[in-house]
Amino acid sequence: MSKVRVHNLNISLDGFSAGGTVTYDKPIGEASRLFDHFDGRVIWGVHGIGGEAIRADHMLTSAWNQGIGVEIMGRRKFGPQTGPWGDDDWRGWWGDEPPFRTPVVVLTHHERAPIEFENGTVFHFVDAHAAEALEFARGLADGDVRLGGGPTSIREFLQADLVDFMHLVTVPVVVGAGVSIWDGCADLQDRFDVESVTTGSGLTHQLWNRKR
Amino acid sequence: MSKVRVHNLNISLDGFSAGGTVTYDKPIGEASRLFDHFDGRVIWGVHGIGGEAIRADHMLTSAWNQGIGVEIMGRRKFGPQTGPWGDDDWRGWWGDEPPFRTPVVVLTHHERAPIEFENGTVFHFVDAHAAEALEFARGLADGDVRLGGGPTSIREFLQADLVDFMHLVTVPVVVGAGVSIWDGCADLQDRFDVESVTTGSGLTHQLWNRKR
Repeated sequence: MSKVRVHNLNISLDGFSAGGTVTYDKPIGEASRLFDHFDGRVIWGVHGIGGEAIRADHMLTSAWNQGIGVEIMGRRKFGPQTGPWGDDDWRGWWGDEPPFRTPVVVLTHHERAPIEFENGTVFHFVDAHAAEALEFARGLADGDVRLGGGPTSIREFLQADLVDFMHLVTVPVVVGAGVSIWDGCADLQDRFDVESVTTGSGLTHQLWNRKR
Repeated sequence: MSKVRVHNLNISLDGFSAGGTVTYDKPIGEASRLFDHFDGRVIWGVHGIGGEAIRADHMLTSAWNQGIGVEIMGRRKFGPQTGPWGDDDWRGWWGDEPPFRTPVVVLTHHERAPIEFENGTVFHFVDAHAAEALEFARGLADGDVRLGGGPTSIREFLQADLVDFMHLVTVPVVVGAGVSIWDGCADLQDRFDVESVTTGSGLTHQLWNRKR
């Protein structure tokens, strides 16, 4: 069976992975400083940074796409809208080249027709609980399933015990408010083996593997 | 310009990366314990380990192929023979599926016709110094150049100041004798920025980036 994996989920020292409010101007809300260190150029490989230095953070980040066949994301990762979809031609935050290049399942209570891009990215809009969404995603592609966030959707999969692997990144900042990955997840560590690695940048990378 | 990169070079506490003697039975000579931890299943991605736990060592190891167009290796990595080639039909240690899947330049004083595999691996046998070999390799493929070792050939490129990046792995073993990566490289660190990361297995990964 393929794995369900979380990669590069940034968490502040006070436990937040997203801001409380998402707008067109601020996709990550008040928690944008969580991403100051994040170098998205390496999600398809460390050579993405060209002539710059290759750091441990780059190497760890680059596992993001390895063996992934499909992503599942919460609606707020796709856009700031709430409620029924308008006719605003919104196609996600990413322009004509979304970085996914695979099918992507967007969890929403408002289903709609898929949106397709030339680079292989296809957004499917599905009203489903975690287990149903996972079954639908696995039907779209072979390979592992990446849970792309945000924290609310990842928590739903954690509470249903459907997560095999998480690469969490503790960022040494205090954001003060937002959406926590840990709410309702007391004693989560009992179900996982956890390895922690600190890099030269001051980030701590945590690798959570579900106990077998 | 593409980078010249070393990946996953294992080094003992006493500085050795290969044994002094290579035979058909012992490809790494007396230093085989340097590879006890090494998981080659992940060089094309962390999903290579299937259902097992994904560790930091796996994630760092998996940068091996990212953006690589061609490898350069010393003759002893290709086989145990010395002197003129015999007619023993030797095609390398790796059977019908060498892990490279790109052109590979084998440094040897005894040139011979290329050996080609169906998976994209083609061994070219070239009698050349480091700079010439690098120019030849870059003519074979786009992308970065991986120096595949062993330590003798990597030292030659270091001494010619042709190495942009090295991922070295300090393995907590003492092998006693062999071929050192450090011979003739005094003050090498002055030319590089070095980041060290220790993982849960007890390995220390060093990332050497040439100063710009």
